[in-house]
Amino acid sequence: MIESTAERAITFGDLDPMGIVWHGNYIRFMELGREAFGRAHGLDSIRMYDQGYYTPIVRATIDHKAMLSYGDTVVVRAWIKPSPAAKIIFQYELTRKSDHVVVATAETVQVFLDRDRKLLLDAPDFYRAWQEEHQLVAR
Amino acid sequence: MIESTAERAITFGDLDPMGIVWHGNYIRFMELGREAFGRAHGLDSIRMYDQGYYTPIVRATIDHKAMLSYGDTVVVRAWIKPSPAAKIIFQYELTRKSDHVVVATAETVQVFLDRDRKLLLDAPDFYRAWQEEHQLVAR
Amino acid sequence: MIESTAERAITFGDLDPMGIVWHGNYIRFMELGREAFGRAHGLDSIRMYDQGYYTPIVRATIDHKAMLSYGDTVVVRAWIKPSPAAKIIFQYELTRKSDHVVVATAETVQVFLDRDRKLLLDAPDFYRAWQEEHQLVAR
Amino acid sequence: MIESTAERAITFGDLDPMGIVWHGNYIRFMELGREAFGRAHGLDSIRMYDQGYYTPIVRATIDHKAMLSYGDTVVVRAWIKPSPAAKIIFQYELTRKSDHVVVATAETVQVFLDRDRKLLLDAPDFYRAWQEEHQLVAR
Repeated sequence: MIESTAERAITFGDLDPMGIVWHGNYIRFMELGREAFGRAHGLDSIRMYDQGYYTPIVRATIDHKAMLSYGDTVVVRAWIKPSPAAKIIFQYELTRKSDHVVVATAETVQVFLDRDRKLLLDAPDFYRAWQEEHQLVAR
Repeated sequence: MIESTAERAITFGDLDPMGIVWHGNYIRFMELGREAFGRAHGLDSIRMYDQGYYTPIVRATIDHKAMLSYGDTVVVRAWIKPSPAAKIIFQYELTRKSDHVVVATAETVQVFLDRDRKLLLDAPDFYRAWQEEHQLVAR
Repeated sequence: MIESTAERAITFGDLDPMGIVWHGNYIRFMELGREAFGRAHGLDSIRMYDQGYYTPIVRATIDHKAMLSYGDTVVVRAWIKPSPAAKIIFQYELTRKSDHVVVATAETVQVFLDRDRKLLLDAPDFYRAWQEEHQLVAR
Repeated sequence: MIESTAERAITFGDLDPMGIVWHGNYIRFMELGREAFGRAHGLDSIRMYDQGYYTPIVRATIDHKAMLSYGDTVVVRAWIKPSPAAKIIFQYELTRKSDHVVVATAETVQVFLDRDRKLLLDAPDFYRAWQEEHQLVAR
């Protein structure tokens, strides 16, 4: 299965008054992983837009398992869950670099809109081809 | 059922290259609603912390139904889902002020940690009392 | 002199580990004031863009005078400094609502780019007219 | 002169409706550079806090020279400007990795507060020693 990894050092501005990373920042970390995947495997948002598709996130779920503090680096692993639907489903595992503890798991679901912002009921050809090429077709 | 409402005008900085609000900003809008609820009904994060409890969010789910654009104002309605567990479950409905269209629904789950950051398996007395006072006890 | 005012309750996610608002968030508060001014006086970013101009911020300066904490509400006052140059110069005063203490003063400078992203050396006619109408012409 | 460098890939969420990085995000990029410096040279915020000092930013200035777009990586160079005052003055140069164009220059000024949040009129001994060790004493 193809996947990608991105990492980022935690900064002071990421922290909440308890000294741990504010939960709302994880959605930015997930984007780092998703875009690293897009760059590595030819599936980034801007490229899809240039091909005529806008792929907004319609659902995001984040499960927090442990905390990140100052001095930590977060490692974001991202991959695509095969699906026959007209959707791009990314899954994520965020770990603390120092001890490999999983700090969060997450999932985002994206749909395809055309230039007129109309929802596509079938995945566009380019995405079907991309899935086949990467052996990501759900059976 | 008690609930609270907060609203915020969409700003240029909220928008993504498609001219709609970037999905990662919704988690900030949810916080506006949750904190308006906390202020109105005596259940804000800092007050709970002062009573010895840290209440981190362990799960967040956001379902996007429609888009927000420049000129829109988002209205965030927040309420608590009754639960016998040692958890605070907030639910949210975000609407576009101009036409009352629901743009997203969401849920967050918070747990209770004590000062030593140990997870509480039972809800602390102050929260049980608060739930009873507000008739939010799940049966 | 025309000016506008916006306000926002401080949220948990705005705070840093010292329990005060992280400095990087002030630039968002300034935007709230600048856009309230734009809406009130017909000078918002999107309207200018629709008229063919993109007005990026080329300089921002923020002076922090006092701190904002949880429970505070920040009040942002914004106005335009008259200038004969092809620039929009906004000035800001941010105060704590409870005691009217000035927490920061700030300034942003915007230039005019045309659709081809070429810098305009003279302010466009619509902005000159707007300035005259609002008696904001520097002498 | 000692300095440090950090870099970050631009993400979709960094962009504004014009498809370039929203100006408010630069203050986060500056933090990446400042903290890389702190880690490399023993001067990070949390370490200073542990020694009894809180070092809030009291002034920030950012000059934008060029734009960052999707696909770009920003490189942040940060160094300290020697000063006899009880201040930490960081200067920054942000460049676009692909063509080394300077996209912004910036400066932040930090002061020293003690545990009671009282402003120090003289730099604390640890900072004087640090400056001497790194030959950063202004003459």
